[in-house]
Amino acid sequence: MLVDTIIGMIAAVLTTSSFIPQIFKAYRSKSMDDVSPYLMLLFIAGASMWLVYGIFKADPVIIVANILALAFNMTLLLMKLIYSRRRYGRSSSIHAQ
Amino acid sequence: MLVDTIIGMIAAVLTTSSFIPQIFKAYRSKSMDDVSPYLMLLFIAGASMWLVYGIFKADPVIIVANILALAFNMTLLLMKLIYSRRRYGRSSSIHAQ
Repeated sequence: MLVDTIIGMIAAVLTTSSFIPQIFKAYRSKSMDDVSPYLMLLFIAGASMWLVYGIFKADPVIIVANILALAFNMTLLLMKLIYSRRRYGRSSSIHAQ
Repeated sequence: MLVDTIIGMIAAVLTTSSFIPQIFKAYRSKSMDDVSPYLMLLFIAGASMWLVYGIFKADPVIIVANILALAFNMTLLLMKLIYSRRRYGRSSSIHAQ
């Protein structure tokens, strides 16, 4: 395996896994008030494009990393929705930055 | 310009810019209690590796996107440090997940 492929794989693991501690933290505290929903929304849009890019390039590292990044960010967005509603009732909106 | 290059550029702009609304939100609220520092730490580590990867591949999109991602995440980590100390005093640690 080439050195650049190994570096790319380590990079993909690190950036993708960065959302895991955020999921655990939010699950424990049941609060995501300080987390902007636009972080997840833009990342979901971006990871979707990276996924298309990975399919174009037939690059399995980019494909797998971005499927995981999509799953993690969708989880966080859903948690944000659930915890906001639980706290402030249905009038609270995810659109509030 | 090839279609895959355009898709990659859009992807890079989206994932990199996703941290900007989080910076604005944190600046306004002066609170980042719900944001895990490991999100930024892992992303900084990952973006550093992507930067090395981009230099290896001589890919300006990957290089520029990850320099910006590094800057945004370092800014967020610094803001988290400053706001934690301001709120809880010096005993509060960034290491608390």
